[in-house]
Amino acid sequence: MTTLITGGTVVSATGRTTADVLVEGEKIAALLAPGTAQALGIQAETIDAAGKYVIPGGVDAHTHMEMPFGGTFASDTFETGTRAAAWGGTTTIIDFVVQYPDQRIMDQYHAWHEKAGGNCAIDYGFHQILSDVQDDSLKAMDELIDEGVTSFKLFMAYKGVFLSDDGQILRAFQKAASNGAMMMMHAENGSIIDVLVQQSVSAGKTSPFYHGITRPWQAEEEATHRAIMIADLTGAPLYVVHVSAKQAVEQIAAARDRGMNVFGETCPQYLYLSLEEQLGAVSEQWGEFEGAKWVCSTPLRSRAEGHQDHMWQSLRTNDIQMVSTDHCPFCMKEQKEMGIDDFSKIPNGIGSVENRMDLMYQGVVSGQISLERWVEITSTTPARMFGLYGTKGVIAPGADADIVVYDPSGHTSIGLGKAHHMNMDYSAWEGYEIDGHADLVMSRGTVIVDETGYIGAKGHGKYLKRGLSQYLV
Amino acid sequence: MTTLITGGTVVSATGRTTADVLVEGEKIAALLAPGTAQALGIQAETIDAAGKYVIPGGVDAHTHMEMPFGGTFASDTFETGTRAAAWGGTTTIIDFVVQYPDQRIMDQYHAWHEKAGGNCAIDYGFHQILSDVQDDSLKAMDELIDEGVTSFKLFMAYKGVFLSDDGQILRAFQKAASNGAMMMMHAENGSIIDVLVQQSVSAGKTSPFYHGITRPWQAEEEATHRAIMIADLTGAPLYVVHVSAKQAVEQIAAARDRGMNVFGETCPQYLYLSLEEQLGAVSEQWGEFEGAKWVCSTPLRSRAEGHQDHMWQSLRTNDIQMVSTDHCPFCMKEQKEMGIDDFSKIPNGIGSVENRMDLMYQGVVSGQISLERWVEITSTTPARMFGLYGTKGVIAPGADADIVVYDPSGHTSIGLGKAHHMNMDYSAWEGYEIDGHADLVMSRGTVIVDETGYIGAKGHGKYLKRGLSQYLV
Amino acid sequence: MTTLITGGTVVSATGRTTADVLVEGEKIAALLAPGTAQALGIQAETIDAAGKYVIPGGVDAHTHMEMPFGGTFASDTFETGTRAAAWGGTTTIIDFVVQYPDQRIMDQYHAWHEKAGGNCAIDYGFHQILSDVQDDSLKAMDELIDEGVTSFKLFMAYKGVFLSDDGQILRAFQKAASNGAMMMMHAENGSIIDVLVQQSVSAGKTSPFYHGITRPWQAEEEATHRAIMIADLTGAPLYVVHVSAKQAVEQIAAARDRGMNVFGETCPQYLYLSLEEQLGAVSEQWGEFEGAKWVCSTPLRSRAEGHQDHMWQSLRTNDIQMVSTDHCPFCMKEQKEMGIDDFSKIPNGIGSVENRMDLMYQGVVSGQISLERWVEITSTTPARMFGLYGTKGVIAPGADADIVVYDPSGHTSIGLGKAHHMNMDYSAWEGYEIDGHADLVMSRGTVIVDETGYIGAKGHGKYLKRGLSQYLV
Amino acid sequence: MTTLITGGTVVSATGRTTADVLVEGEKIAALLAPGTAQALGIQAETIDAAGKYVIPGGVDAHTHMEMPFGGTFASDTFETGTRAAAWGGTTTIIDFVVQYPDQRIMDQYHAWHEKAGGNCAIDYGFHQILSDVQDDSLKAMDELIDEGVTSFKLFMAYKGVFLSDDGQILRAFQKAASNGAMMMMHAENGSIIDVLVQQSVSAGKTSPFYHGITRPWQAEEEATHRAIMIADLTGAPLYVVHVSAKQAVEQIAAARDRGMNVFGETCPQYLYLSLEEQLGAVSEQWGEFEGAKWVCSTPLRSRAEGHQDHMWQSLRTNDIQMVSTDHCPFCMKEQKEMGIDDFSKIPNGIGSVENRMDLMYQGVVSGQISLERWVEITSTTPARMFGLYGTKGVIAPGADADIVVYDPSGHTSIGLGKAHHMNMDYSAWEGYEIDGHADLVMSRGTVIVDETGYIGAKGHGKYLKRGLSQYLV
Repeated sequence: MTTLITGGTVVSATGRTTADVLVEGEKIAALLAPGTAQALGIQAETIDAAGKYVIPGGVDAHTHMEMPFGGTFASDTFETGTRAAAWGGTTTIIDFVVQYPDQRIMDQYHAWHEKAGGNCAIDYGFHQILSDVQDDSLKAMDELIDEGVTSFKLFMAYKGVFLSDDGQILRAFQKAASNGAMMMMHAENGSIIDVLVQQSVSAGKTSPFYHGITRPWQAEEEATHRAIMIADLTGAPLYVVHVSAKQAVEQIAAARDRGMNVFGETCPQYLYLSLEEQLGAVSEQWGEFEGAKWVCSTPLRSRAEGHQDHMWQSLRTNDIQMVSTDHCPFCMKEQKEMGIDDFSKIPNGIGSVENRMDLMYQGVVSGQISLERWVEITSTTPARMFGLYGTKGVIAPGADADIVVYDPSGHTSIGLGKAHHMNMDYSAWEGYEIDGHADLVMSRGTVIVDETGYIGAKGHGKYLKRGLSQYLV
Repeated sequence: MTTLITGGTVVSATGRTTADVLVEGEKIAALLAPGTAQALGIQAETIDAAGKYVIPGGVDAHTHMEMPFGGTFASDTFETGTRAAAWGGTTTIIDFVVQYPDQRIMDQYHAWHEKAGGNCAIDYGFHQILSDVQDDSLKAMDELIDEGVTSFKLFMAYKGVFLSDDGQILRAFQKAASNGAMMMMHAENGSIIDVLVQQSVSAGKTSPFYHGITRPWQAEEEATHRAIMIADLTGAPLYVVHVSAKQAVEQIAAARDRGMNVFGETCPQYLYLSLEEQLGAVSEQWGEFEGAKWVCSTPLRSRAEGHQDHMWQSLRTNDIQMVSTDHCPFCMKEQKEMGIDDFSKIPNGIGSVENRMDLMYQGVVSGQISLERWVEITSTTPARMFGLYGTKGVIAPGADADIVVYDPSGHTSIGLGKAHHMNMDYSAWEGYEIDGHADLVMSRGTVIVDETGYIGAKGHGKYLKRGLSQYLV
Repeated sequence: MTTLITGGTVVSATGRTTADVLVEGEKIAALLAPGTAQALGIQAETIDAAGKYVIPGGVDAHTHMEMPFGGTFASDTFETGTRAAAWGGTTTIIDFVVQYPDQRIMDQYHAWHEKAGGNCAIDYGFHQILSDVQDDSLKAMDELIDEGVTSFKLFMAYKGVFLSDDGQILRAFQKAASNGAMMMMHAENGSIIDVLVQQSVSAGKTSPFYHGITRPWQAEEEATHRAIMIADLTGAPLYVVHVSAKQAVEQIAAARDRGMNVFGETCPQYLYLSLEEQLGAVSEQWGEFEGAKWVCSTPLRSRAEGHQDHMWQSLRTNDIQMVSTDHCPFCMKEQKEMGIDDFSKIPNGIGSVENRMDLMYQGVVSGQISLERWVEITSTTPARMFGLYGTKGVIAPGADADIVVYDPSGHTSIGLGKAHHMNMDYSAWEGYEIDGHADLVMSRGTVIVDETGYIGAKGHGKYLKRGLSQYLV
Repeated sequence: MTTLITGGTVVSATGRTTADVLVEGEKIAALLAPGTAQALGIQAETIDAAGKYVIPGGVDAHTHMEMPFGGTFASDTFETGTRAAAWGGTTTIIDFVVQYPDQRIMDQYHAWHEKAGGNCAIDYGFHQILSDVQDDSLKAMDELIDEGVTSFKLFMAYKGVFLSDDGQILRAFQKAASNGAMMMMHAENGSIIDVLVQQSVSAGKTSPFYHGITRPWQAEEEATHRAIMIADLTGAPLYVVHVSAKQAVEQIAAARDRGMNVFGETCPQYLYLSLEEQLGAVSEQWGEFEGAKWVCSTPLRSRAEGHQDHMWQSLRTNDIQMVSTDHCPFCMKEQKEMGIDDFSKIPNGIGSVENRMDLMYQGVVSGQISLERWVEITSTTPARMFGLYGTKGVIAPGADADIVVYDPSGHTSIGLGKAHHMNMDYSAWEGYEIDGHADLVMSRGTVIVDETGYIGAKGHGKYLKRGLSQYLV
């Protein structure tokens, strides 16, 4: 099938061009200057993008579909989660294969293929979580690179669950330095947090707000610095996930100024939401437990301390390179509720996979970032960072035809009963209004969202074997 | 005329694509995936780029053709200089209109059009030098923006010639903050340098080496910091030209980390050459005056102090955003010679307009920068920085067909009688060997360099009315 | 005459000792453990200091008695100013000999001896101001060192009055690097300030508040950095006077971390007062011109920007080494009034010579600094910094018996009709209450203030030939 | 007994005074200006100090006498170690009570009293080592403060032996924040080091040099930063022991610039010795195992990386506040030898308790530090830091008469058979020549070293109950 997307403004990470995009089958066949298609007599189904932005489909490099956590599972399956992603203009996710200490890594990797295969609305890749790194883990890193899993996440928190100690981290980083893998890090000092949580609960400070209080910025800054030093020792590239504290950004910025391959991702919640708002959240239904909706780790940070402003600035300065969601949804009923008497039992996570492109576009509207930077941080850099560029992240001949037609004159209201297709009984973004709208979403040449809504098919999405990072200096 | 550049690897600032480039008249009409041209039955003159890089033509944002200086003129005219540029894969220059204190700015602007008009091998734009800023200067800034001159260079050195004092600089920056102009700065503390030069000459230290000794890094770092503070006070964007000292880079990096629109350009000489080598240069012909060949301002810096390594690193970290030449050639005979008894009388300048693309490509070969970064710092960012992007700096439909086919299997030897078409009686880069070669250069759809050499025409190059910077955060 | 100060807590820069102080003539003869005087049978006039602090007399290293400025004179003569100093526990001042460009330095030096000789209540030394540095100025630096004037102040502001350009500053610093002098700097970028002032006045923004607005922190930070770079180039020690901006402190701190001999002085006004309070000051008598009382340069800074808190911190961290007053009093009537329609005509200055010891002691009471640090920043370090240590700044055998008995149970109310003996028609510190009191002040063995008040004699104070700084690393 | 030390230059942390020192019994009774003693008719035994420095006895705040480590004991007993200290002008040590995880803290504390009591030549205090912090440990902290043990050392290395994890450290720091204790930290990341050591040994890299290679600066910098963050979270004061890496100093300096109570100690080995010299050390007797003589932790650092120069600078800038020895001697025979096939089995430690005052004085001779700074970093600050000031660390009435008469015209040759009275079969400082000599050492009024050598008595030294730190800001 041949499609021509005409008259739109094609936006890349570096600029904009008025051009038609010719799609042939699953791929982009050509970019054409206005009039060229006519001159060449191209016959094609036409999509009119005049007055709209034509951008590469969003790449959300941090999701947790159906993730098992604390006796429950993240409430989006690969089916519901990727469909919601499609609604919001995201055409690729990279999900985390979870390994707990008593599980074999390759088993888990295959289990994730079972879960995702045949269920996804859009393409997907995997990162691998390594818990409690052992000799086997190092071996699996080599194997998985051949499978297209080229990035590995370690944890400096969650002792007994995910945590690897510094010596274990060192060994994994040494391996990455030799095989080219990207090391991802959950950078919070779990040992400190565990004590603070226990002290808080003992003192009867059990409401959701204390989740943030017991995960202070010092614990994030410290772990970020520690991970950077291990990267420095080994030469491994380091990607710090869900950065929320400005002091952690400063550590990343300092490492980058020294020329290190150190990267940081932030998430919409750390740009828009704050600890103060979580503290103030009270509802008729949930009382002060309302705040549980935004219990995630790293936690929301204090606006008075300036974290949110600094994070936007860091997106501008490229001290933070990209925005993912850390999509890990849990319902209030039966899930978040598990921690109603003790914040430490609240499943950690927020669902945003549907909203990321819109929320970040609003940053363009409000002047925080440029239009080009929007494309860069939501699509181009994620693709480059994780070895997908060329196939994803760019509108260029030969690339997958993952394309979003985004209307700057449109409007999107987020919330239950509105733009909300994730499997959650609440929206973390209830009431957010976006001055733009994803009118059309194409995945590998197939329109999966149009003005009638989602028209894609379960199982359309394919597994992406990824290469090594294309973003290293 | 229709041309199809086939089979090459099209390199952009973010990645590479195998694609054919269709050129129609002066513009790029399309980028096509392999096979698409055939499928569409496109008829065109074909240029085979298989195995080669297809890149946007180089944009050299800092040249001084025929510049009057110290009683002589830079030895390249617009004709010879732009022809040499073409040889080396540069298809756009931005030259500086010079105004001395006793000259009217608009007169000078028109005079530069006289000099360049009808003489250039490639397209050209202008920056305006403002000496000794007065009310008239501020008024001219507004006028010139309408003329497509959107960037203005001030000097913190050369008292009585170019220098504006800090109050004058402040006023120009205030104007730029209101009209969107980019302020360019020659950041060296001239007051300090003048004393050091006078002391050096008085002490009989008159050889070319003392040019560098009397322009210490502190004088550059200081002025850079001062310019940044004036930018901070006013909100004007600041572009520091020919950064050579690592400490100046650190000032720029610190400002950028704070979110300021502060930018830095370096030049090949600050990446490759050093004060130590200048000191050691002795020839039969010139004796120790040999060092005069590399007398430029800012000066070459000490390798022992690590400036060169740091500058390469800064290119990787984007603390320095782009590379220009500061092409300002003078012959040894009759020109440089004027300072044979006194380094302070040596005309300041090095000629590199022909060599920049090659010299920077060698940084790709040696692993200092990536292929994408090469395109970014030599073409894409210069175009964005100075309001040319879309027309220049990118291979995209609708852009000017300024294209270089660069062969990574080719070879270029630089030096007199070799790759050297600048009007100079020596090469600052004698003996440099490049593991690559600009096989073909196209300017607005016309091939001006091919395997037979330069085949372009004087007067082909047109004046570029530039817009405001497209690189601001 | 022999005096024994008994039972007090002798406080030094490093700690406290319960000891008796034996004074013989003008000198301290001994420090004695309790009981030792009796055991040795010492016969002496006794001063009971039980329950009180016995500290070295204050050294105020920055005063401007009778200073000619803008057509008027600072309102305190050496007689009234040093008497007021004595009331407040200061027993040494270092005053600035003023040289304007058309004056001979040595003439001015002698003129200052004329003014001070026979008039002072306490001992005094001189710094020399050098305006518009010339060959003669450099020569005078050597001569004056022999006269005991070992520190020289330059200005980066006040063009045509005090300002030296950077080349002139460089030459003076070179001289200092060779003869050991301390270079003092008024670090504000006058060129920038002059433009801002002119623009403000032109725009009708003429009230005292605009004095601060037109002297932004950037102008201070910039000049501080510039002076540091010149110190770096030459090796001269640098002492920045009246530091008020936190960013200027950061520059000083950075230089010190690199091991440079760079020092900073602040004044009580930059610790206690703010631009916001100046803006809000309105009185029945003066209306919004009330703010003129605190017009000084550098200006008061914004409390919202955190300068005051940072300055206290800097005193604790030794990023700022000492506190002087910059005592330069002008009356509101006839003097400050000169600028009633134009803030730029208000004589710049605040009078605090009487209040410094008390105001800084209040910092001990409020927990900002320790008792030892109080002694260090008001007496010991000033004496070391300017070559007086051993004679002044310490309670030790052989030192001048400049001693203050300070009662932590006493109380001092500052203001007109209260603790106010400066020749001013207002107090910059009206209403300040101090939880301590200087009960007794001794100058070279003579009690000049006791419970009855000032009992000293005009002319008791002697000129101090100072040595080179004893504070260099 | 009454003694008068006459005619010397009494040196304090802030300056020098020519004064006689009157000693009555164990205390300093008076400081007297020249001539005063005669005038008062004082009768006393006289010690002539003309031409010499009279300084407070050295306070070595970091020793390990008879320390059990790795199956052996540090080779100096309290008897031999304190006698050697006396020879070198040190009159106070603070030794570490060692607690291993299976030992009760208070038992160990009492055991240390057993070991030291009646055996010491000079006065001594104790710090307490806390291994594997538990509830009991926190309780013991309160008890020990009442016993005069006000400082507690934790370890971030030596897993299973000394290490406390970050949560344990947090709890101890919380306790210190409430009871005023000083937290001392061995700041090296043991988890990383353990892996590197294991890898090195597995790879057959077993010579002493690899001790340093497997303890890279990153491991020290990282741990230092982590400890600072825990101090930041809790408000506890932090004292980092044996700092050797310049990057660790930078972390301390940054914390101090933010106003934190963070302190650093270095040792003579980190100022004088280097990894390169250790690598190059080969002897006939020991071959390349010669390097074992300088196996200590933290390790010697690379001179090429500039650690030693930076450490001297840090002493000047007060980024490092004091110098201790970390005296922990082991003989080559039977002790160091244990690691002849495996560096990781070499007992860690160097003996310097006798040499510290001399080695640091040589820094005065070479211009690295001032005479006053010598006294400050070896005596005054250690006393203030650890709650001994007033009794120790200063020559003032009422203080213990711990006095050294140091002759700048004397000479000291260090090495076996020369100045070497420690119980070691080698000297870590063999061949060092000092341009000065400790002529006389007095401890609490008793001369224990004179021109004949050590004349003190075992058991003269008494236990010092220390107060809280007197050095906090």
